Amino acid sequence: MRAWSTERLTRVERALETWVGTDAPAGLGEAMRYAVLDGGKRLRPLLVLAASEAVGGNERAALRAACAVELIHAYSLVHDDMPCMDNDVLRRGKPTVHVKYGEAGALLAGDALQALAFELLTPDSDNVPEAMQARLCRLLAHAAGSAGMAGGQAIDLASVGLKLDENQLRHMHRLKTGALLQGSVLMGVACGDVSAGERQALSDFGAALGLAFQVVDDILDVTADSATLGKTAGKDAEQDKPTYVSILGLERSRAYAQELHAQALAALDASGLADARALRALADMVVDRVN
Amino acid sequence: MRAWSTERLTRVERALETWVGTDAPAGLGEAMRYAVLDGGKRLRPLLVLAASEAVGGNERAALRAACAVELIHAYSLVHDDMPCMDNDVLRRGKPTVHVKYGEAGALLAGDALQALAFELLTPDSDNVPEAMQARLCRLLAHAAGSAGMAGGQAIDLASVGLKLDENQLRHMHRLKTGALLQGSVLMGVACGDVSAGERQALSDFGAALGLAFQVVDDILDVTADSATLGKTAGKDAEQDKPTYVSILGLERSRAYAQELHAQALAALDASGLADARALRALADMVVDRVN
Repeated sequence: MRAWSTERLTRVERALETWVGTDAPAGLGEAMRYAVLDGGKRLRPLLVLAASEAVGGNERAALRAACAVELIHAYSLVHDDMPCMDNDVLRRGKPTVHVKYGEAGALLAGDALQALAFELLTPDSDNVPEAMQARLCRLLAHAAGSAGMAGGQAIDLASVGLKLDENQLRHMHRLKTGALLQGSVLMGVACGDVSAGERQALSDFGAALGLAFQVVDDILDVTADSATLGKTAGKDAEQDKPTYVSILGLERSRAYAQELHAQALAALDASGLADARALRALADMVVDRVN
Repeated sequence: MRAWSTERLTRVERALETWVGTDAPAGLGEAMRYAVLDGGKRLRPLLVLAASEAVGGNERAALRAACAVELIHAYSLVHDDMPCMDNDVLRRGKPTVHVKYGEAGALLAGDALQALAFELLTPDSDNVPEAMQARLCRLLAHAAGSAGMAGGQAIDLASVGLKLDENQLRHMHRLKTGALLQGSVLMGVACGDVSAGERQALSDFGAALGLAFQVVDDILDVTADSATLGKTAGKDAEQDKPTYVSILGLERSRAYAQELHAQALAALDASGLADARALRALADMVVDRVN
């Protein structure tokens, strides 16, 4: 599994290196590359590639989808870190984009990264069938937009200082982080040809994994330090944000993460796919991670 | 022609009313609708529809493309008006989105509008062939991204207080406003089936019209008042931005607008299309407009 992910990560980094910011006017391209390259766990790209491989998907399409989803993730971090949002100065152990390139530079770099995601999905050639391109755009736009990530961020913004119950918190996180993680799996699946049953099982896998990711995130915000996280620890409590830990407590949050992990693996089993080892390993990684 | 545009505008407004912000969490959906509905000349949607009709394009695809391009335009205005960019408080005669919904709300609404543009282009049904969906996404992503609108904005940002020559200014505007206007024409064309020669002629038309639009914009910033413009007049000079008027002077700028108008009409003639009346009328409107 280590060899698997090392090889895939190399491929993703090389593709991002080639595709991001290279045809942009100087300042913009630099900010885009700063936001994307040399950072992050690349969980979403790995999910796309693992899902695509599990269904025998089109490799070129999967690499483009992997990079596109990472660009959406990266742009959301750039905008999230801005002073009018989370006002964070540290990300992946480096100054955030607006600290380095100014607020206007960060705003534009984020905007351009979102557009680039859809550009990567719709190459003029590169042997990706246009019907597949359209399906990938549909999945990504839905996961990134107001019914997905952006909607979740809006709920998050509106819920600072409020008491959410567990259902409301879950709804927020299903949109805010879950949609793009589940979308990564679905985009990988869309690179291949699967039955409705297989697609549903992998969709369930993505949903459980997406929520598990957020529960673990909430736990790490409390238990890890900033150096390990590569971002400011303890922000949620400081900003009075509702989290799984604040609602369920630390111990029940940990148990819930394990329960979601088990649900994810059960969904994989239900898919009946012959080789889902990489997806399984990624589910383990999400729950066992330390940052 | 008035009847033509009234009917098309009604169709576009109705579609935007249906599609924008209706499935978004409350605060976000409201901000998205505020940014898009009941405002603007809808020049880009009209260009899409006129181009599509000139080539006998798919009507459902054209309506989606018309709305998608308007969403990109609307999001760019929302982000442009923010304090870290132009810091403008008036747009289309109303308070700007960040004045009304806060900076974070404006940031998210803009982000969600961009995603929604690509969602509109990739319906699950609605009888738009998936290959056409992919081509529309490709054109829009390219026009909106770092090689288009976002790139032009970055150059604009970097050029405040600098002396640009006419070539540099033209390059900036070809990206900043030209790319999306030309993209509107090309997206309309992509809803139909045309020869390479026809596509090239309409692309030339879009390029000339896009630049003419900006020259007229620079003229109006000097000659019109804020009430007529619906936005703050005299901003360019106040912000020490290079414009056609500052480089060429008012008289030569007016002559250049006329020259570009003539180029646009010549390209239409060269296209050999039987009915390009609506496109011709839109070119007239761009040059003769008072706001």
